Amino acid sequence: MRDDGPGILLTDLYQLTMLQTYYDRGMEDTAVFEFFVRKLPGERNFLMAVGLEQVLAFLERARFSADEIDWLASTGRFDARLIARLRDWRFTGDVDAVPEGTIVFSDEPILRVTAPLPEAQLVETRIINLLQYQILVASKAARCVLAAPDRLLVDFGLRRAHGSEAGLLSARAAYLAGFGGTSNVLAGRTWDIPLFGTMAHSFILAHDSEREAFEHFARSHPRANTMLVDTYDTETGVAALVPVARRLAHEGIRIQAVRLDSGDLGEHARCVRRLLDDSGLADVQIFASGNLDEYALRDLRSAPIDGYGVGTRMNTSADRPYLDCAYKLQEYAGRGRRKRSEGKETWPGRKQVFRQLDAGGRLVRDVLTLEDDTQEGERLLQAVMRAGRLLDEPPPLTAARQRASRELARLPGALRSLDPAPPYEVQISVALREAAKRVDENSG
Amino acid sequence: MRDDGPGILLTDLYQLTMLQTYYDRGMEDTAVFEFFVRKLPGERNFLMAVGLEQVLAFLERARFSADEIDWLASTGRFDARLIARLRDWRFTGDVDAVPEGTIVFSDEPILRVTAPLPEAQLVETRIINLLQYQILVASKAARCVLAAPDRLLVDFGLRRAHGSEAGLLSARAAYLAGFGGTSNVLAGRTWDIPLFGTMAHSFILAHDSEREAFEHFARSHPRANTMLVDTYDTETGVAALVPVARRLAHEGIRIQAVRLDSGDLGEHARCVRRLLDDSGLADVQIFASGNLDEYALRDLRSAPIDGYGVGTRMNTSADRPYLDCAYKLQEYAGRGRRKRSEGKETWPGRKQVFRQLDAGGRLVRDVLTLEDDTQEGERLLQAVMRAGRLLDEPPPLTAARQRASRELARLPGALRSLDPAPPYEVQISVALREAAKRVDENSG
Repeated sequence: MRDDGPGILLTDLYQLTMLQTYYDRGMEDTAVFEFFVRKLPGERNFLMAVGLEQVLAFLERARFSADEIDWLASTGRFDARLIARLRDWRFTGDVDAVPEGTIVFSDEPILRVTAPLPEAQLVETRIINLLQYQILVASKAARCVLAAPDRLLVDFGLRRAHGSEAGLLSARAAYLAGFGGTSNVLAGRTWDIPLFGTMAHSFILAHDSEREAFEHFARSHPRANTMLVDTYDTETGVAALVPVARRLAHEGIRIQAVRLDSGDLGEHARCVRRLLDDSGLADVQIFASGNLDEYALRDLRSAPIDGYGVGTRMNTSADRPYLDCAYKLQEYAGRGRRKRSEGKETWPGRKQVFRQLDAGGRLVRDVLTLEDDTQEGERLLQAVMRAGRLLDEPPPLTAARQRASRELARLPGALRSLDPAPPYEVQISVALREAAKRVDENSG
Repeated sequence: MRDDGPGILLTDLYQLTMLQTYYDRGMEDTAVFEFFVRKLPGERNFLMAVGLEQVLAFLERARFSADEIDWLASTGRFDARLIARLRDWRFTGDVDAVPEGTIVFSDEPILRVTAPLPEAQLVETRIINLLQYQILVASKAARCVLAAPDRLLVDFGLRRAHGSEAGLLSARAAYLAGFGGTSNVLAGRTWDIPLFGTMAHSFILAHDSEREAFEHFARSHPRANTMLVDTYDTETGVAALVPVARRLAHEGIRIQAVRLDSGDLGEHARCVRRLLDDSGLADVQIFASGNLDEYALRDLRSAPIDGYGVGTRMNTSADRPYLDCAYKLQEYAGRGRRKRSEGKETWPGRKQVFRQLDAGGRLVRDVLTLEDDTQEGERLLQAVMRAGRLLDEPPPLTAARQRASRELARLPGALRSLDPAPPYEVQISVALREAAKRVDENSG
């Protein structure tokens, strides 16, 4: 991703109109906002927290350029006081968050912002925009990993991801969640993610025959050459490849793999495996792609397929393309705040999640409580930014990836299933319930 | 959107590995690729073409920077010949396309690229990435417009759009398809789209009472002030607003509207309308938001709601978050090419779509044929780029928006319905069928 990002104007207009009133009224006391998911989609037994690095980078750099200020002033929508305040606006607040790669559940704060109200308010839109999508994709990718734990999974989804940033961030989220790499060159460059990719159907079609296409490619790429064999007919394609592979073997060029991309992938894989084995090409691997998701991967579990390209359905989280998530004001000027809109009630105050494990290290329950309460278990939220400055350099992506892997291993069996499990217990502490009651008595 | 975009490395690795072989083998003859949608999702009776402006901007500017070249060379994946060719790589080809705002159907080329093979190949990923998403959103937004033709629709979806570019491009696509505006400040700035937005729940919660929040906001924003009334309870919120509105009216400050954001919006709207009317506030409009899409808008048709904020479900095209679309090689070195993979067969050659209308100007059928064939009707594809240069400045967004509006008016009644209609007829011409047969006889 570009260092400079889309800029601070990538926000909802209401953030700026609210700021005008906040500054007019001197409402600059400390506000506490928390980002959380209200309710897991029925098909998700857990979510994976991803996106913190991008949020922190955004908060560190958020500024209005002179050009942006001039434009805002030119709209005639804002008063001179607001424009003056925006000129040297920066984020000076604190952030506490769950580390990337952590498993999370509904109602649990994933990120908390503590800052003067106008600062905590203005950053809302981009925080949700960055977190929602990455959590969505990482959670879907984690399900793919659980469905095919012993296979190479490669992100192929850039083309049908929703725009450039989605393509980039989904490659990162999938790798973090356990994928082995991506086809996305810029993502590979940005985060040092292993890159995969060799040829498309157009490559085969541009040649006069499949045989010629295979040979040309292998000679240009003697070490990395997955041959796409389904352009006309999968088994015929493999039959065309076999003599090429044998001839090239004499020259020391080894065909690494074939890729299947249409039809019944399991059927084709079995047939192709036999063809290759019978032709002395037992070391040629089989790679498959095409409309894959966690369910397809589960169905293909017994197929002789060594790796998969997983694209569109993962990068768009196709069965659940959004989360019911929110970034809500929980405290202002030292007082808990709580929305009570129908179906959208929130828990007030600064909160912490305590995660309780069994003797084997598996998750048993989480307790959601106030930050200053103490419960058994691991604290999920950690301090990551104070007064607008990062406390530490963000951990390398590989560290978050290792955390994700450990977290998936700690999931109880039922939650690891692709099928809906009884919800994991997120206990609301007595302290939190009482705090909510106190807030209700004092507002309305 | 930023002028410079994410850069040329936002591509799939295989584009570069294929280029290496193309250059090795001198395969630089003219290639023809077409972008089309294979099959409309069952819930869509038509699609709307959007995204051409972004594709053309990308093609005009596509270059490898020195920095990108150095990185590519450093990976050790590519030979010196490829690196040398990429150094002065640019797109020198032709583009023919359907204008933005045009209604399209399955199998119809929406954009055609005619260029030396390595150029037409390399741009594939980003072309699909730009077109797929914008077509998806515009088509969903058009359905919202058809469901609520006489109401103001405002894009509220930035926060749950998949990243920054999705937020931007969906605001544009929705406006083009007939929305009245967006909450997205950067989109408003970039394309001069009308901006909407006033306050969030946090604004209410940060105050000691709703009454105080309403008054503060109205005084800061005497001319644009939609009051969010559902933070605690919708009707109670309106009851708190009424005395504020009456008092401010004496000072010449008018409350413009209230916004409902939870519960049964139709029920609340009827109740709130009565409350406002009975309180002498008949000119206060009602705006509603929350989980809306075309189906919800249809269900609310009789509700006294003046405008809607439509977000997440539109910006993610939630019921169908991707299209079965492709950018396929149709001709190379003067010969038609055709993929025959199971379920993914394509029509070869350079094609044109002729649209036939009835006496009243409504769509009757389209004929898909070869470019040099002549059929009755309007030609949909137009020349837009020659030798890498735009033939004309892109039309203003308002012109595309007018086209979209005319196009929706030309749709036959059944296709305007939200319910699945019998598919619109896209006739395959005799000339095209014969061309496909000739290609099949010559390849395999």
